[in-house]
Amino acid sequence: MRFDTGIFAALLLCAMPLAAAADTTEERLIRGDAVVRSLNNGVPQQTLERMREEFPFLAEATEAYALGDVWSRPGLDNRTRQLAAVAAFAALGERVFMKVHAGYALNIGVSEEELKEVVYMVTVPAGFPKAIAASQTLSELFSQRREAQQ
Amino acid sequence: MRFDTGIFAALLLCAMPLAAAADTTEERLIRGDAVVRSLNNGVPQQTLERMREEFPFLAEATEAYALGDVWSRPGLDNRTRQLAAVAAFAALGERVFMKVHAGYALNIGVSEEELKEVVYMVTVPAGFPKAIAASQTLSELFSQRREAQQ
Amino acid sequence: MRFDTGIFAALLLCAMPLAAAADTTEERLIRGDAVVRSLNNGVPQQTLERMREEFPFLAEATEAYALGDVWSRPGLDNRTRQLAAVAAFAALGERVFMKVHAGYALNIGVSEEELKEVVYMVTVPAGFPKAIAASQTLSELFSQRREAQQ
Amino acid sequence: MRFDTGIFAALLLCAMPLAAAADTTEERLIRGDAVVRSLNNGVPQQTLERMREEFPFLAEATEAYALGDVWSRPGLDNRTRQLAAVAAFAALGERVFMKVHAGYALNIGVSEEELKEVVYMVTVPAGFPKAIAASQTLSELFSQRREAQQ
Amino acid sequence: MRFDTGIFAALLLCAMPLAAAADTTEERLIRGDAVVRSLNNGVPQQTLERMREEFPFLAEATEAYALGDVWSRPGLDNRTRQLAAVAAFAALGERVFMKVHAGYALNIGVSEEELKEVVYMVTVPAGFPKAIAASQTLSELFSQRREAQQ
Amino acid sequence: MRFDTGIFAALLLCAMPLAAAADTTEERLIRGDAVVRSLNNGVPQQTLERMREEFPFLAEATEAYALGDVWSRPGLDNRTRQLAAVAAFAALGERVFMKVHAGYALNIGVSEEELKEVVYMVTVPAGFPKAIAASQTLSELFSQRREAQQ
Repeated sequence: MRFDTGIFAALLLCAMPLAAAADTTEERLIRGDAVVRSLNNGVPQQTLERMREEFPFLAEATEAYALGDVWSRPGLDNRTRQLAAVAAFAALGERVFMKVHAGYALNIGVSEEELKEVVYMVTVPAGFPKAIAASQTLSELFSQRREAQQ
Repeated sequence: MRFDTGIFAALLLCAMPLAAAADTTEERLIRGDAVVRSLNNGVPQQTLERMREEFPFLAEATEAYALGDVWSRPGLDNRTRQLAAVAAFAALGERVFMKVHAGYALNIGVSEEELKEVVYMVTVPAGFPKAIAASQTLSELFSQRREAQQ
Repeated sequence: MRFDTGIFAALLLCAMPLAAAADTTEERLIRGDAVVRSLNNGVPQQTLERMREEFPFLAEATEAYALGDVWSRPGLDNRTRQLAAVAAFAALGERVFMKVHAGYALNIGVSEEELKEVVYMVTVPAGFPKAIAASQTLSELFSQRREAQQ
Repeated sequence: MRFDTGIFAALLLCAMPLAAAADTTEERLIRGDAVVRSLNNGVPQQTLERMREEFPFLAEATEAYALGDVWSRPGLDNRTRQLAAVAAFAALGERVFMKVHAGYALNIGVSEEELKEVVYMVTVPAGFPKAIAASQTLSELFSQRREAQQ
Repeated sequence: MRFDTGIFAALLLCAMPLAAAADTTEERLIRGDAVVRSLNNGVPQQTLERMREEFPFLAEATEAYALGDVWSRPGLDNRTRQLAAVAAFAALGERVFMKVHAGYALNIGVSEEELKEVVYMVTVPAGFPKAIAASQTLSELFSQRREAQQ
Repeated sequence: MRFDTGIFAALLLCAMPLAAAADTTEERLIRGDAVVRSLNNGVPQQTLERMREEFPFLAEATEAYALGDVWSRPGLDNRTRQLAAVAAFAALGERVFMKVHAGYALNIGVSEEELKEVVYMVTVPAGFPKAIAASQTLSELFSQRREAQQ
């Protein structure tokens, strides 16, 4: 069951030593994959998978650097990291990526209300259009997840 | 002592009822002022004060809306709110405002390491220039605060 | 008839005293609603209404702050305010919101030619892609309004 | 006297036929120069002049296209054009250029209050940091002009 | 045949003297049209053509300034100019325009691999979302061109 | 002599095998350092060095990912890569980083005129303020390099 794979990946991450200079790219890719699975209920992430065939370097950079190096760092708990990421993507108007990370946040137990609070807050640094667009994307996400559960 | 005023303001905030439709702008301004003092060790915030004489509406909008309405909302704990704000300001390249909110974060107990983690994360949504600029601003902030303590 | 509601709302706005510190949020919301109706031929605005159920704070912030506090200010005549807003939204690439405010502008008597002039001007601060995208959105708006009149 | 040169340039602009396909670049440069002088109290504009020696194409493009082609278009009155430009530059965070065009606005009779209103409005499309930065730049401009008059 | 028209336009461009102060707008428009045809396999460009009827000034500014003045300049070879443009559009998130210029690049002999390299590079100045979006747009472009050849 | 170290680093880069999955982070850091030295006349890069003590992860990410993984890729010749990077940084308004990469471009034989051409081109995707700011930064760079040679 998906949930089991998610838990397994989370355990794998805990068991993995911190990134170090002797890390190979292979290990960083594995760590990045474990990050995705622990955030994405055990399944691969669609935007990342799409890139593998035609843009292999970008898929690897996303998996090894963004996920394997950055996202696996222990100095920020997952919940805070996801909410800070949602704030950044929303402020930048990067709706697709905000949606992905908001989904990860919900998967790890962040509430819909907390995500809305971040979007409300985004009116201040980024203005109303970015926040309103983010709210529409969150609305879509919540709705899709409710349907998927039926 | 400053710290006492900060605690007093935090208590005042707790005692204040949530924002409601019967709220007057006067009450929203008071709440916004309490938010600043609880985040800023009890003292007014310089960027806000500068605006009062020549741009009164903007000072009021910042105090009543941004601080009084948004920042006082209870649905997100202060630590997460400040870190999400730092992420948004950093991603947007708004260094001055990132510095203000990073200072607030430190005032309420967030560590320098957690702030660095947010800046590291910003390389992903916003690229390396924004993250590097943010790191220089954080470095400045940490340094100024160390000097101020001497 | 719609036009009558628009005129009524405009008269209501004139009759309302300026925003003041004793204003309640309730009054600011009413003023915001009057602003929308006076700009939008008497009918509610779709993007705003969509948010009411799931993102009530954002709907209120838009109505009370953006519309009730900012947009009702008398220091700038409606025509200039709308054209300046169109310029800002266009420069930022916020096409949806530019379209809304360009529609308001047309409703209050600004000509299609004046809107085109603003879009031409946007090439200078924001470059050709933003201006060209804005021209495509204006084209859509003009076309939809012509159809609606048939 | 400067004012006389400004009036002369404005008259020259009125006397010049609209841009047409037979226009030479030479004529567009002359028109652009007349636009600057009519907006800038008869004197050349510093940012433009700085570019002439080392970046001649950019100086020409600014003078012939931005000023000669766009800024001289009659379809938008000067006051509205300047205020829309101020809104766009402020929303984009382009403080230097906002300052130049706000100065032009004041030169042609726009009031300080109207410029402040545009900056207040910018909180909505672009957020508070952009508007607050714009207010600080306007404050600088107003202050420098007051000193210059003494 | 298209290819012949593209070659003819390229020859025409070579035969045309450099832009000069005596250039008429008419000549700049002709040069801009020659630039498009030499980059676009001899056929007009769709985004530009769409604007001619309703936004004639913007169509002319694009053709005379962007294409006729800037894009025809000899100081940068076509390949480098197109790749630099792709980098700029991709970094800005201007996917539609990036696609147009990536198409031009392919038309003049730039390889798919070189375009991918530019997109990989964009992760550094602009972050992963912009680069990933650009990769999706390039993927679309490559795919459409393969289909068109069948 | 600096030049010798630059040549040595370039030779080292040629001798190094392409990035591969078995690469350790250590090797990627070495490659990144070689990239900097080959572009920067053999000396370390100041912005990168500043980060090492207080933001070690960011310094490593810049050196290993941005420089070691991306910048060392062979699919784009150095000259094109640098000019595309200058275009991207300039379009984004990232003047400090544009200056660094423009410096690298000059170090590897790109001419001042070619850099100016890229800046002229940036008016189209990003507007005149970004291009004018970039021209001022290039002017500073050219001037500082001339002084350094005396």
